[in-house]
Amino acid sequence: MVSRVRIDPALVERCVFALAEFGASDGTGVRRAVYTPEWAAAQEMVARWCEDAGLAVHWDATGSVWGRLEGSEGGKAIVSGSHIDTQLPGGRYDGALGVIAGYVAIAALTEQFGPPKRPLEVVSFCQEESSRFPRANFWASRAVVGRIEPHEAETMRSYADETMADVMRSVGLDPDRIPDAARGDIETFIELHIEQGPLLEEAGLPVAVVNAITGLRGYTVEVHGRADHAGAFPMDLRHDPMAAAAAIILGVRENALAMGRPAVTTVGRIAAEPNFPAIVPERVTFSVDARHPDPAKRAALYERHERLFRDMAEQWQVEVTWQVRSDTPPCICDPQTVQVLETSAREQGIPTMTMQSGAGHDSQIMAARSNVAMLFVRSKDGRSHTPEEFTTIEDAVAGIEVLAGALHKLAY
Amino acid sequence: MVSRVRIDPALVERCVFALAEFGASDGTGVRRAVYTPEWAAAQEMVARWCEDAGLAVHWDATGSVWGRLEGSEGGKAIVSGSHIDTQLPGGRYDGALGVIAGYVAIAALTEQFGPPKRPLEVVSFCQEESSRFPRANFWASRAVVGRIEPHEAETMRSYADETMADVMRSVGLDPDRIPDAARGDIETFIELHIEQGPLLEEAGLPVAVVNAITGLRGYTVEVHGRADHAGAFPMDLRHDPMAAAAAIILGVRENALAMGRPAVTTVGRIAAEPNFPAIVPERVTFSVDARHPDPAKRAALYERHERLFRDMAEQWQVEVTWQVRSDTPPCICDPQTVQVLETSAREQGIPTMTMQSGAGHDSQIMAARSNVAMLFVRSKDGRSHTPEEFTTIEDAVAGIEVLAGALHKLAY
Repeated sequence: MVSRVRIDPALVERCVFALAEFGASDGTGVRRAVYTPEWAAAQEMVARWCEDAGLAVHWDATGSVWGRLEGSEGGKAIVSGSHIDTQLPGGRYDGALGVIAGYVAIAALTEQFGPPKRPLEVVSFCQEESSRFPRANFWASRAVVGRIEPHEAETMRSYADETMADVMRSVGLDPDRIPDAARGDIETFIELHIEQGPLLEEAGLPVAVVNAITGLRGYTVEVHGRADHAGAFPMDLRHDPMAAAAAIILGVRENALAMGRPAVTTVGRIAAEPNFPAIVPERVTFSVDARHPDPAKRAALYERHERLFRDMAEQWQVEVTWQVRSDTPPCICDPQTVQVLETSAREQGIPTMTMQSGAGHDSQIMAARSNVAMLFVRSKDGRSHTPEEFTTIEDAVAGIEVLAGALHKLAY
Repeated sequence: MVSRVRIDPALVERCVFALAEFGASDGTGVRRAVYTPEWAAAQEMVARWCEDAGLAVHWDATGSVWGRLEGSEGGKAIVSGSHIDTQLPGGRYDGALGVIAGYVAIAALTEQFGPPKRPLEVVSFCQEESSRFPRANFWASRAVVGRIEPHEAETMRSYADETMADVMRSVGLDPDRIPDAARGDIETFIELHIEQGPLLEEAGLPVAVVNAITGLRGYTVEVHGRADHAGAFPMDLRHDPMAAAAAIILGVRENALAMGRPAVTTVGRIAAEPNFPAIVPERVTFSVDARHPDPAKRAALYERHERLFRDMAEQWQVEVTWQVRSDTPPCICDPQTVQVLETSAREQGIPTMTMQSGAGHDSQIMAARSNVAMLFVRSKDGRSHTPEEFTTIEDAVAGIEVLAGALHKLAY
């Protein structure tokens, strides 16, 4: 049976603007780091929305807010949501739109179709961005899948050198209770998120169904040459690590380009030593961030990069060493959930494309214990993590319609 | 008349080791910044050497030590020397060997040939390295040619945020008296220095006669692109300033290589913003240090570099802007003094080559009021500004013999 779900654009718009007031900054930006007063106020508003829509509200041990509608037939829950925290500054849509989508979809379903057969939940995760704690690394969803190590809260430190545990206590949370946040009763988790790239805009489409989240390897590459006098040492006798680094930077870009979309590789961080204009550097160190959602192509990309590191060492007569700073395997979304989203989009009359996520998301953590899939909505100019990020209410509504249709299929 | 001057290797060696004790550090290194206790002790030893050799000692207003032998026929002075301060750490030879050379040569001349016709002086300049005051920029020799601006001592700050004036007062010098250091009575200044490059070693020669000091243009280049998400933004749509910077770094190197020796270009300093591994940078800023001693070729080198900056902006679809941070014209040495040095080398039986200096030296400042030329002695592996810098006593003696022979020709 095809059930067309009606989503009210005015409600979506009110929610976006209301949430953006907590931590509003930098014009259209938002600064809302986890466990700050503005974060707590935003979570309280989400909790009120849920209560007003008749959902049972639960704050878990990490401060994530859950709104639950019981199902007449019981069973494991169908959940949608995203995170409430932002970059500093971030925008109004990254994370927040997924929380709003979950709330608006479930509220519309109750209103239009009554109580579901299966439990339906919206979640507003406390943290995803690592903008306050550089190593928090999906704090909320790791708690839900039981992957926070004992004492991690006591040892993890913020950029301002506070411990996670102290900061949790400052907003009334007990770090010793983190294990209580674990859930084994979530069957499916669907996250709606802004795209953070320009592919939907390029394709002229409002919504994408995400069938995989990319795998990522982060290298720290160190090129060691010989510090020589910038004036007195001839070019042809130098062992210049800056030139070798430049060749590697262009080379890893070529490797990713040659492999084609969605392969990406980025050098975002660089440092030279001694970093004086008149001295050929002794050492140049830089990051290489390489991603591909396909396990085999990802391995091939990494192999090309590592071969390049070795080749450039020989060609430029310098020493090149590298460390793998982080290595995340790709997350393949649950094919049946992906299909449910695609079917829903057809039924709701929303044109979509299939896409892989190049960014990391809570969904990849949730995948350890649940079926996951994602929806992306079009981002203006592909921007994110900036006050300039923007998604039209029309596109947001289109995404929420697909989401609501899928939740209906799974829970009714 | 050919006058073979005898230089005592044991004296040269004793002087090198004695001076290296003031600020000795890092194994064979020396840390002797201007106006420190170790610097003052070193200058006092140079003053004692001069007194013991029968020279009249004068400390000028900036703390440079001058040892003078009056000439029977009067006239303007013939001067040799270099600087006593070092990099942090530097080695035992950069600067120090030129001071020792001036002292040893004049002491040998007095002993072997008696009083000169023209005044002969050795100078131990207080400062050349900018290792304590980043903008001191030939402090000692600028004072000698009257090119220190009023109040410069009060406004110039050290890396530790001291003013030059306070630091001068701390060693008993009066910054208000700096103008008294100016000299209009120096006809010729000859500086012996270690090469700081590998060309003499490559040629198998102990000594070079320097006929020009390179011209230098220091650029700060800023490449402005667009910060995008390292995962979600496809390679082919990026405006990546890191890739454009890498292309420029390789391009300026190619420009200098294509022009051939002695053209050099160095990128020694680099910074990215925001400098996060997972964000395509918004901006990459780096130094370009370009040098050539020939005025026409130098202009051509700068033009090639600036054309490259423009071309790369277009090719990589980024904004490239540059500032000229410093622009020093080349210093052409006095041809007659160069010839005197070459004749002296032949007479002393020392094989030499002609060379341009790729590094800056006090000589280029002294050239404003005097005839200047330089002698280079062979540096092991071309190293300088490091504890590893090394010149054999044999090569040092060969250089001092050429210097002493030239001073004899000019002053006797």
